[in-house]
Amino acid sequence: MYVIDTNSKTSLHIQLYQQMRDDIKQNYKVSDKLPSIRKIASLYNLSKNTVESAFSQLYAEGYIESRPRSGYYVSAFRFEVDSGESVKEGASKPEVVYRYDFFSARLRKEDFPLKLWKRLLNKTVDESLDFGAYLDGAGEMGLREQIAKYLITSRGVRCDAEQIIITSGFSDSMGLLAKLIRYKYQHLAVENPGYHIARRVFEEYGYKIERIGVDKQGLELQSFKDSAAKIVYITPSHQYPTGVTMPIANRLKLLEYVKKVEGLIIEDDYDSELAYYNRPIPSLQGLDSSDKVVYLGTFSKSFSPALRLGYMVLPNSLLALYHDSYDSHFPRVSLITQKTLEAFMREGHWDRHLRKIRTLNKQKHNLLKEELQKRLKKTFEIVAEGAGLAILINPTVAFDWEKFKSLAEGNSIKLYFAKERCGGEFEAIRMGFGGFSKEEIVEAVELFSLVWHQSIKA
Amino acid sequence: MYVIDTNSKTSLHIQLYQQMRDDIKQNYKVSDKLPSIRKIASLYNLSKNTVESAFSQLYAEGYIESRPRSGYYVSAFRFEVDSGESVKEGASKPEVVYRYDFFSARLRKEDFPLKLWKRLLNKTVDESLDFGAYLDGAGEMGLREQIAKYLITSRGVRCDAEQIIITSGFSDSMGLLAKLIRYKYQHLAVENPGYHIARRVFEEYGYKIERIGVDKQGLELQSFKDSAAKIVYITPSHQYPTGVTMPIANRLKLLEYVKKVEGLIIEDDYDSELAYYNRPIPSLQGLDSSDKVVYLGTFSKSFSPALRLGYMVLPNSLLALYHDSYDSHFPRVSLITQKTLEAFMREGHWDRHLRKIRTLNKQKHNLLKEELQKRLKKTFEIVAEGAGLAILINPTVAFDWEKFKSLAEGNSIKLYFAKERCGGEFEAIRMGFGGFSKEEIVEAVELFSLVWHQSIKA
Repeated sequence: MYVIDTNSKTSLHIQLYQQMRDDIKQNYKVSDKLPSIRKIASLYNLSKNTVESAFSQLYAEGYIESRPRSGYYVSAFRFEVDSGESVKEGASKPEVVYRYDFFSARLRKEDFPLKLWKRLLNKTVDESLDFGAYLDGAGEMGLREQIAKYLITSRGVRCDAEQIIITSGFSDSMGLLAKLIRYKYQHLAVENPGYHIARRVFEEYGYKIERIGVDKQGLELQSFKDSAAKIVYITPSHQYPTGVTMPIANRLKLLEYVKKVEGLIIEDDYDSELAYYNRPIPSLQGLDSSDKVVYLGTFSKSFSPALRLGYMVLPNSLLALYHDSYDSHFPRVSLITQKTLEAFMREGHWDRHLRKIRTLNKQKHNLLKEELQKRLKKTFEIVAEGAGLAILINPTVAFDWEKFKSLAEGNSIKLYFAKERCGGEFEAIRMGFGGFSKEEIVEAVELFSLVWHQSIKA
Repeated sequence: MYVIDTNSKTSLHIQLYQQMRDDIKQNYKVSDKLPSIRKIASLYNLSKNTVESAFSQLYAEGYIESRPRSGYYVSAFRFEVDSGESVKEGASKPEVVYRYDFFSARLRKEDFPLKLWKRLLNKTVDESLDFGAYLDGAGEMGLREQIAKYLITSRGVRCDAEQIIITSGFSDSMGLLAKLIRYKYQHLAVENPGYHIARRVFEEYGYKIERIGVDKQGLELQSFKDSAAKIVYITPSHQYPTGVTMPIANRLKLLEYVKKVEGLIIEDDYDSELAYYNRPIPSLQGLDSSDKVVYLGTFSKSFSPALRLGYMVLPNSLLALYHDSYDSHFPRVSLITQKTLEAFMREGHWDRHLRKIRTLNKQKHNLLKEELQKRLKKTFEIVAEGAGLAILINPTVAFDWEKFKSLAEGNSIKLYFAKERCGGEFEAIRMGFGGFSKEEIVEAVELFSLVWHQSIKA
C-alpha cells in the first residue's frame, strides 16, 4: 500500500517510485510480476503518465524489466548486487595455468621497481597536474625530452623531443603510423619469418603485404627491391624471431634504396637493450641522413608490459601530417603514467634499471644455456642466443615433434614455436626465461629434458 | 595629443579609438593609468558617449582593463601577444592562451578528487599487481564488473562484465570497433550534424559514410533506412551538437529496423550523466533484446580526460570475433589506472563524484544561463540547454558574424561554433562552462556581451 501525498513538494511520480522501490527491495522476489501501470493508476488515482514515469525510473535503475506483451517483472540483477554477491567472477575464457610457461614476452613481477615507482607516483601526483584538460596528443613534452635524451645517448638515434609520440605500446604505434601514411603507400614489406602483429595492423588499414625472406644478414635486400613495396618493417638489431643482426653495410644499402624510391623504413627496436655478449647495436635510424626512418620503441620488454607504454620517433617530414591528424588531439597514455615515467627517467632510475635488468637476465640467459647443455647434451643446437628474453633451440637428432608437443602439454609445460607465431620456414623452440627465477629455470629444464629425451626417435 | 576631425567620414569615437590605441602601443607601459573618460571628453570637446565607445572598443580588444572604482589601466595581455612572445605550451605548436576559452570538453582542475585518487593509488599499488605480465586485453575483470554494475543500475544498460572492453577513450573504442566489423559492413551512417571523430575513425578503415539528417526526434529514421548503411553511429540521449533526445518510439523503431536488416547501432552515451532538468535518460541499449547495440562510454566528460579511460559494451554476438582479434591480447590502459578506478568505483566514490559533478555543473549551467539572459536580453535565443557542459545560443537580431569572430579573437575570447566542428546546416555558438569557475562565468559573459553588442547590426 503506497501513500501518495498530493500536497507534498516531492512530485507524485518520485513518491511512487521511491515507495515502489522500497517495496520491491523488501517484499518482492526476482521475477515477481508487478501490477500493471493501469491498475496502479486507478488504485491510487494517479495519471497513467505519472505511473509510467515511476516505472521508467525503476526500469532505468535496473529494479524491474519489461517482458514484451506481458508486463513488468522484478529483475534479477539488482538483488544479486544488493546481497553483495555481485556479478560473476572472472568468468572469461578459462585459462590453463601451466607449471612452466616458456613465454618470452614477460618479466618477473619481482623485477619491477615497485617501491620506487610508488614513491615517484606520490611525488608526481599533486596540484600541478590538470586532470580537467585534454593534453598534448603526442604526449607530455617533459617525458618526450627524457626519451629523446635516452635514445640519443644510448641508442644512437638522431632526434629531438618534437619527433617523439607517446603511445600505449607497439600495436598502437603501428596503428597510428599505418593511418598516417596510407595515402602515400599501399604496400608494406615485412620480414618472413617476422612479427605477425606488424603485418596484421597494416592489413587492417588495407595495405598489401609483401613477405621478404630473412638470411644471416637479416632482410634480403634484393627481394625487397624486387617487391612492390617502398616501405619496410624490420627488426634490424635483433631480428624477430631468428635473432640475426643486419650488418652495417646492409643498413646503408637499405637506407640508400629507400632514399632513392622515396620509401620509408620502420625500425622496430623492441628489445635491443637486452644484449648480453656485446654492447647494444646502435639503431639504424642513427645512420639515416635523409629523414626516412620511423623508429619504434617500447617499455614493455625491459620494464613492464602492464604500464602500456611505447613510443615512436617520426621523421620530420611526417610531423606536419601527424599534427593535422585527429590522433594528435588524443593522448594515448594517462597523465599520471607519463609524469611518473618522466620523473623516473630524469632522476636516473631508467639507466640504473636497464643495467640491473640486463645483468639479471644475462645471468638467467647463461644459466638456461648451461642447464640445456647439461641435460640435452649433443641432442640439440642453439639457433639464437645472447640477447632478448629467449634462447632458440632445435634438436639435432631424429625427433618426434607430435609426441614432444603432447608430452609437454601433459606435463604442464607451455612451449612456443617460431614457425607457429612468425610464419616462414624457420623453425625453433623459443625457450623464454624472462618470467622465471633462477630456481625455476633449473626445475623447468629438468622437466623439459625428460619430455625431450622421450621424444627422440630411437 | 589626439587630433579629432569633426569633418571626417570616420566617426568620432573610431578616430579617438584609433589614436588612443596607437598612443597606448607606443607610449604606455603595462598598468599605466589612462586619463578618465570625463577628462578626455572635456579636453577634446567630445560627448561622454563618444569617449565611452572608444574606451569600450579598446577594452574589447584587450588593450585596457577596468579596475572597480579606480578607472582604466593598460592591460598586460595584449602586449605580450603583440610582441610575438605569446604563451607557448611545451615547445610544440605555439598555442595562444585565451583569457576566456569556452571549450566545452573540459572540467576544472579543482573538480578532480586529487587527494582521494592519490590515496587509492597508494592502496592499490602493491605486491599483488604483476607488472611483469601482459594482462587481459579487454581490461581487468574487477574494473569491468564495476563498470557493468554502474551501467546496469544507472544507465539501464543490459550487460555483464564479459561484454565490457576497457579502452583509452572514445576514438580508441571506435577504432577497435571499426576493425572488428569491417568484414561484415562497409557503410556507416552518422548524424549530420554530428561528432566528426566518429566518422573519421571509420573512414580510416575504408568505410563509406552516409550522412543522415537530425530533426527534433534525433536521427531521421527514414533517411537511414533509405541509405546504403546498416550500421549507424548515434548519440541518442543528448545528440551532439543539437542536444535533442531520441524519443522512446523512435528508439524502438530503430531497434526493430536494425534487427530486420541485421545491422548494428553504435550508441555513444558520452555525457548522459550530466542532465540537469531531468534524471539521465536510460540508454537505448537497455531496450535492445536482439543483441544489436554497441554501447560506448567514457570517463573523459564527467571525470577526467587526462586519465585516458573509456569503454565499450559489445553485443554477445561480437565477443568471439573480438577474442579472435589481435587487439584482445593488448590492454590499452595501464594496470595501475585500471585498478585504482576499480577501487574508486567499488568504494562508492564514483556515484558520489557523479552527484557532486552534476550539482556543480548544474549550478554553473544555471548561472551561465542567467548571465546570458541578463546581458544579452532579447538579442539571443537558447538553442540547447539542460545537459552536458555547454549551452548553445544564437542571436535573434541582425548580426555581423565576421565582426563578432574577430572581436572575440581580439578580446582573447575563444569561441566554438557547432557548424565548424560538426558539419551540416545547424549553427549555434557553443558556450562551454565546464572549465570555468562561477566567478569566471560572470566575468567571461561580461566581456562576451561587450563583443556581442558591438556585433549587432544597427
